[in-house]
Amino acid sequence: MRTLAEHRAFGGVQGVHAHASTATGVEMTFGLYLPPAAARGPVPLVWFLSGLTCTHENAMVKAGAQRVAADLGLAVVFPDTSPRGEGVADDPAYDLGKGAGFYVDATQAPWAPHYRMWDYIANDLPRVLFANFPLDEGRQAITGHSMGGHGALTLAMGLPGRFRAVSAFAPIAHPTASDWGRRQFAAYLGADEDAWADHDATILMRERGFDGPVLVDQGAADQFLDLLRPEALAQAMAARRQPGAFRMHRGHDHSYFFVASFMQDHLRMLADALAD
Amino acid sequence: MRTLAEHRAFGGVQGVHAHASTATGVEMTFGLYLPPAAARGPVPLVWFLSGLTCTHENAMVKAGAQRVAADLGLAVVFPDTSPRGEGVADDPAYDLGKGAGFYVDATQAPWAPHYRMWDYIANDLPRVLFANFPLDEGRQAITGHSMGGHGALTLAMGLPGRFRAVSAFAPIAHPTASDWGRRQFAAYLGADEDAWADHDATILMRERGFDGPVLVDQGAADQFLDLLRPEALAQAMAARRQPGAFRMHRGHDHSYFFVASFMQDHLRMLADALAD
Repeated sequence: MRTLAEHRAFGGVQGVHAHASTATGVEMTFGLYLPPAAARGPVPLVWFLSGLTCTHENAMVKAGAQRVAADLGLAVVFPDTSPRGEGVADDPAYDLGKGAGFYVDATQAPWAPHYRMWDYIANDLPRVLFANFPLDEGRQAITGHSMGGHGALTLAMGLPGRFRAVSAFAPIAHPTASDWGRRQFAAYLGADEDAWADHDATILMRERGFDGPVLVDQGAADQFLDLLRPEALAQAMAARRQPGAFRMHRGHDHSYFFVASFMQDHLRMLADALAD
Repeated sequence: MRTLAEHRAFGGVQGVHAHASTATGVEMTFGLYLPPAAARGPVPLVWFLSGLTCTHENAMVKAGAQRVAADLGLAVVFPDTSPRGEGVADDPAYDLGKGAGFYVDATQAPWAPHYRMWDYIANDLPRVLFANFPLDEGRQAITGHSMGGHGALTLAMGLPGRFRAVSAFAPIAHPTASDWGRRQFAAYLGADEDAWADHDATILMRERGFDGPVLVDQGAADQFLDLLRPEALAQAMAARRQPGAFRMHRGHDHSYFFVASFMQDHLRMLADALAD
């Protein structure tokens, strides 16, 4: 691992680091915010997974997470959203290929060798983080925006016991029934839709739920509502009586102004679940 | 004036607007955050002037101003840093021409016709703002980052009575003695250095000072310390016994992580001066 930059922020340090990823086979870059409390010992870790077209940088500079994380004593990691580099397959569309890993392990050509973002977030990056930074592996929570909200929810429900709480900002909530999902899953996972179900938050909520609190925020003026399908997830949460909240916010769109507006609520909820 | 975008944020609205500028002769874009209190009547206005290479957008998405402004009931305007467009002169350097207006009115070719950023901030944009939005013209304050800190300090001291308070994050503090200033003033204002003095915060602080509180924050690990010359301004403030504070922050660099870390302090100081 090598450190590309360190910026002092709110008494802590916003780092940018790169490492050779065994999951994706290429060098991956991530941001890691360490709060002031990290100088005194291991701190809880919140994962922030980002959306389509984002790198590690967007949420790191736009979401306003550092101020709240500093107050709450949380570390926050901002992973990239796909493998990068010259040898990595891509597609002209913004929602397939680079910047659009969808947090799955591709089984199909030409994606299979590098597009392994589930493995990257679930196994590879954790090894790097816990080996190199003062982070408490027993206290993790996860959140994300849009495609990253999909990733947060599916990883949280797909890895029981790993995360104590999960939240999402305007997640792609039902990708197997959306053009943000069907085309990508067909490309990465193949035509057999049985392989898609483990990567659909609504299906996972119906079938498994989550053993911990769930917070989902959605803007009512989001320009992508038809692609996100939040009502499917809300219905699944209510039907299952999942502990948590689904909140619809009047006037809010899909931008980082929406994410920033509710970041404090999300990190406080996650921090409460991580206390002790 | 036309509205390009409106994003709900922290209970208020982050707008992006464009207008035909009489000062620069081209269309100019600006961001304006209106806090929830603006729905009930005119609110005080804080100007945030940005630094080299920035557009209206950088501080608007990175500085974390909206949350604090919403709490304090402040509007915040984020102007662009230069004229833009095909007919506007430019230079290959990042610190001259587009993105580098330095908040002066150019008198020299090829800059003179469009590079009139002092006039734009002092006269043109205020007309647009007070005609179109619920803003209290009698309650204004100004701040900025780097080149924008230079602009905030020189406009505040150059327009007595206009702004009740001024602050700056890592301002270009003594441009007539810096490579961030001498080359640009020679290009925009000509070789006669007498014309430069009204655009140097340290000289203005020595000769005039400011009738209101001043807050200047500087990172001790700023990579541009030799160009910013903060010690000259600190000395001038101290020698004049200027009410206010000059603060040096251990470990902080020149980034927006520095700006965001202290945004709350700045907006609170400005809001205190704008109260009543």
